[in-house]
Amino acid sequence: MSVRAGIVVTGTEVLTGRIADQNGPWLSEELLELGVDVAHITICGDRPADLTAQLRFLAEQHVDLIVTSGGLGPTADDLTVATVAEFCGRELLLDPGLEEHIAAIIQRWRGVGFDVESGPTRAGIRKQALVPVGAAPVPPTGTAPGVVIPAAAGVPTIVVLPGPPGELQAMWPTAIATAAVADVLSRADDLRQATIRAYGLLEAELAETLRTAETAIPAFERLEITTCLRRGELDMVTRFAAADAPVYDALLDLLVEHHGRQIFSTDGSTVDDQLVAALDGRLISTAESCTGGLVAARLTDRPGSSAYVMGGVVSYSNDAKSDLLDVPAELIATHGAVSVEVAAAMAEGALTRFGTDIAVSTTGVAGPGGGTETKPVGTVCFGVALRGRPTVTVTRRFPGDRERVRSLTTTAALHLVVRALRDADPREPQTHPAPPSAP
Amino acid sequence: MSVRAGIVVTGTEVLTGRIADQNGPWLSEELLELGVDVAHITICGDRPADLTAQLRFLAEQHVDLIVTSGGLGPTADDLTVATVAEFCGRELLLDPGLEEHIAAIIQRWRGVGFDVESGPTRAGIRKQALVPVGAAPVPPTGTAPGVVIPAAAGVPTIVVLPGPPGELQAMWPTAIATAAVADVLSRADDLRQATIRAYGLLEAELAETLRTAETAIPAFERLEITTCLRRGELDMVTRFAAADAPVYDALLDLLVEHHGRQIFSTDGSTVDDQLVAALDGRLISTAESCTGGLVAARLTDRPGSSAYVMGGVVSYSNDAKSDLLDVPAELIATHGAVSVEVAAAMAEGALTRFGTDIAVSTTGVAGPGGGTETKPVGTVCFGVALRGRPTVTVTRRFPGDRERVRSLTTTAALHLVVRALRDADPREPQTHPAPPSAP
Repeated sequence: MSVRAGIVVTGTEVLTGRIADQNGPWLSEELLELGVDVAHITICGDRPADLTAQLRFLAEQHVDLIVTSGGLGPTADDLTVATVAEFCGRELLLDPGLEEHIAAIIQRWRGVGFDVESGPTRAGIRKQALVPVGAAPVPPTGTAPGVVIPAAAGVPTIVVLPGPPGELQAMWPTAIATAAVADVLSRADDLRQATIRAYGLLEAELAETLRTAETAIPAFERLEITTCLRRGELDMVTRFAAADAPVYDALLDLLVEHHGRQIFSTDGSTVDDQLVAALDGRLISTAESCTGGLVAARLTDRPGSSAYVMGGVVSYSNDAKSDLLDVPAELIATHGAVSVEVAAAMAEGALTRFGTDIAVSTTGVAGPGGGTETKPVGTVCFGVALRGRPTVTVTRRFPGDRERVRSLTTTAALHLVVRALRDADPREPQTHPAPPSAP
Repeated sequence: MSVRAGIVVTGTEVLTGRIADQNGPWLSEELLELGVDVAHITICGDRPADLTAQLRFLAEQHVDLIVTSGGLGPTADDLTVATVAEFCGRELLLDPGLEEHIAAIIQRWRGVGFDVESGPTRAGIRKQALVPVGAAPVPPTGTAPGVVIPAAAGVPTIVVLPGPPGELQAMWPTAIATAAVADVLSRADDLRQATIRAYGLLEAELAETLRTAETAIPAFERLEITTCLRRGELDMVTRFAAADAPVYDALLDLLVEHHGRQIFSTDGSTVDDQLVAALDGRLISTAESCTGGLVAARLTDRPGSSAYVMGGVVSYSNDAKSDLLDVPAELIATHGAVSVEVAAAMAEGALTRFGTDIAVSTTGVAGPGGGTETKPVGTVCFGVALRGRPTVTVTRRFPGDRERVRSLTTTAALHLVVRALRDADPREPQTHPAPPSAP
């Protein structure tokens, strides 16, 4: 790709692993969509010398653009603007308009009783209103403004943004609209990105098919392919120049030919998206044991989900299964709480209690304790009850620790719901993913 | 600090933001606990030139140790060992013992029907069994072995580990026990790390107190303090040399004096830990609307939670509130679903239905839709029902988007439960955090 960028994430709390960085990945995706190739992400603490070293490294790697996040607060340890300005050999000047803009924000935020003129407050505002000579300020959405410093001899264009992800994301459109960044972007390629998602497909199987593609598809090497296993699903993301779209189409044909049963999405849609589409106005409820609310939480993660999610029961105890989901106590006594019989009864109980069209249940051994020889840790039984149809049950065995088992179970539940809805719907094609064998 | 390290995370899927890196933060915390100062984390894709550039950068920064993650698979695009070996000027030699070890793992994993001698498989195994001259292999827990390359002129000690977090973490103890890493660690400081957690405390208030501490506490500058706001809680982590423990103790006294009401933990315990301790054998259930299962999911996240979590109801619809939690329909009609009256009835319904000692409820406007003038997005009502006591209700207004409101609501629910349990228990001291004002 013709335009390369580096991202510098600052902040001791990120460097030391106490909070997970969200800005690097977010900026990376945004830049890719703009046709910019992100070559490096670097993370440093709140020490100016380390930040300077990273800026110098990126400049020496001849990136065209550097984006930094963090270190723009009013306090003494927030040093990004001063450090970047020094690196660029530019003086800092007070921007009086910006100073008043920040003061007004703080006054509004703290209320009339607050004295924005008090020593430390005004000093902090003044610090935040310092802009390197020749740089364009990016107005704050919180209180910290950003700056864009145009490229100069040996130094690429640098975009300086605040650390809070909400502020950074809100300020990004303004930052990329500045003349300096627009100039960099004008040299970027016209790139496409396409995502294929599979469920129940092993990485090794996909790798095998990609090896076939290498010889079978002319110009295959012009596709940049990344595969990634996430929550039991295998995502394959391909980037290519707009002119190479036919090469990608050939690959897509080959993959569907080999793995059509496992591939559930070729248009970027997630199983969550497909579930909503497959519901098509029908109502859903949940009955969860080992997932403890994760399935319901994932369904209600979506704005507007109250239109089709009626609710769920987390039946962590046997009594709860009987009292709130009408699972007969003797069924639990006979088959155990982790059984397809109980899973079916749980789903049917939720269907009836919530008056929904479909209900899904999970009951399993999340671990680390509770495993037996016949039902080891990772064993999970699912039930899908659909009004007017026989209830479907499935048993799976998932690898990994408690968190992984709960996460894989949640994803599996969503796939089972989509499959059941499509099977019940004669309009839909009858292809669906196979059960995963130890994803 | 005397010993500095750099971490290099490789993988296009991490660089491009498609999966969140877990290895950088994990390694960083591990190294800090060993008294090693992590100066830089760098992330690159699967391109050897970019990896080499990052290794050279870290070497030039004079770090004593580099840890890399990722790029150790059997396929052609996994190039970390070869790239690091070339950077160190060391040849790669086949380790026959390692080759057979990997072959045995794959044979066991794929089953008897699988031919480990087939061309591509054996070639992949042989690639993974290549070890730089003079390096110590780290036996695999998956199929990818790591290597530790001792320091040499101008090049620090380099630890090469695989990308899957489970494998990397399992192999870490072996890696740091190698002679080369042990030698680096023997020069590290004896460092302490202490965490203070507050709820309902603003960052600006803490900053004010830290400014006081700067002048009031001798040698204050020897403490390295990081503050971080997470899920509505303010964490302050302090690192200091063992000899400076009295300085930290003085700071702790000052903070407790100023913010004793907000500080809920000085020993590293989380609110989740404290909830379990405060339950002290009592049983809990949940009744959730806007959090849609997140409170139950968080409670059951913990191994062994089935001993005290009986279950919960996600009552996303009004009917579910009435049918499964016995909330009178007229109560909802009169006060609205988002009201303290309904919150109280939901909690009491869960208490009765699940037969628990305590129950907590959430009902609110998570957004983006559904807000009104009197109950804007972010308004959440909580109820805490405790057997034999009057039910407590609280209304809060949280900032942010749907995800943030749901996350802040979940944390708030946990704090309310801890507070209610302590208030009800005459043995416990009666200090508890104040409600947060827009955290």
